[in-house]
Amino acid sequence: MTKQKATNVTWQDGEVSREDRYNILRQRGATIWFTGLSGSGKSTIAIALERALYDIGKLSYRLDGDNVRLGINKNLGFSEADRTENIRRIGEVAKLFGDAGIISLSSFISPYKDDRDEVRQLHDQAGLEFIEVFVDCSLAEAEKRDPKGLYKKARAGEIKNFTGIDAPYEAPVNPEIHLKTDEMTVAQEVQIVLDHLHHNGFIMQPQYTRAGDRTSAASQ
Amino acid sequence: MTKQKATNVTWQDGEVSREDRYNILRQRGATIWFTGLSGSGKSTIAIALERALYDIGKLSYRLDGDNVRLGINKNLGFSEADRTENIRRIGEVAKLFGDAGIISLSSFISPYKDDRDEVRQLHDQAGLEFIEVFVDCSLAEAEKRDPKGLYKKARAGEIKNFTGIDAPYEAPVNPEIHLKTDEMTVAQEVQIVLDHLHHNGFIMQPQYTRAGDRTSAASQ
Repeated sequence: MTKQKATNVTWQDGEVSREDRYNILRQRGATIWFTGLSGSGKSTIAIALERALYDIGKLSYRLDGDNVRLGINKNLGFSEADRTENIRRIGEVAKLFGDAGIISLSSFISPYKDDRDEVRQLHDQAGLEFIEVFVDCSLAEAEKRDPKGLYKKARAGEIKNFTGIDAPYEAPVNPEIHLKTDEMTVAQEVQIVLDHLHHNGFIMQPQYTRAGDRTSAASQ
Repeated sequence: MTKQKATNVTWQDGEVSREDRYNILRQRGATIWFTGLSGSGKSTIAIALERALYDIGKLSYRLDGDNVRLGINKNLGFSEADRTENIRRIGEVAKLFGDAGIISLSSFISPYKDDRDEVRQLHDQAGLEFIEVFVDCSLAEAEKRDPKGLYKKARAGEIKNFTGIDAPYEAPVNPEIHLKTDEMTVAQEVQIVLDHLHHNGFIMQPQYTRAGDRTSAASQ
């Protein structure tokens, strides 16, 4: 665990609780953490899930390996230490989002088990849900797809420390959800995650409905 | 501006836009950035504003100097470089929150004009609103309150680089909102910020209402 550096810091309680925020949104915050090889389809599933959640009026937000790198983790590279710090910071951001009430969709290769476990632990300590989704795709298939041409560059030695080529990918041992992407469509994958959210109470029913309401709604 | 370190990164568009998220929430995301001396009342106002927003069914989230230090910025201290990185990361987090649709309430001393301006610029570039609120309290008054006993420690030399004592506070030149806390109650201060949000369209009316509805609501 990263050591706490600053002293003289304490948590300041407010008057609005996490549960209050969840009630405004009629959903529970959660971190859905997609992990898998580059090209395995993490972002594709996240984008489709974001859309499916939107279609039922639920608020999610994608934290993406690419877009986070352009912001909060701008000053990090791809060394092992930087990858670890990259995942740690994203885990902390996801935790804040979950506390705020949002279902965050993180799609990062996140190849190291210890890093993912640290994020899980951060969530556990905060009483927040960490849903690890193993986007399981064979290296052969991911390399065949190679949507960004990165495997080609890695094979040519133009990119170093590339997961699956010259850096390890440590598969999840006991993820909440295991998607075997070679055998499923994106729609099926999304449905599995949605079912998990429904069955585990992350998506609440509207506070009240009326006969004939097409959209149902809640506030306060 | 912090240099972009990682290469091979691009933004991946989704199917759900920022406006779509704003519509789910019936509000526009924004960053309300309270700046001022330690003890000036930043957190107190943020807590009261959070409550006032909740009371009208709006979702906000407090990013607090203390609680962020325990998480995302755990590995930062109080040197000038660390303070700058502290503010930069918080600015990036606030930006993500604003993009997600949340009204984030940041209360940090954030003593350096350049740091605040960098956060403003991050928001401008992303088309997001940065509302700088100068929580203006005289040093004498802040030191008299000294709610955490920090001024006493700073005067005794037990804390170094303490803003207002042996480190500078650079007051905002042209903040969106200037709260003279010596002359106002917290309720008045909150009302000024709420009025600003109303007048600038951050708080949308419910999508539909019916006669007799106490709470009005929206989804999709």
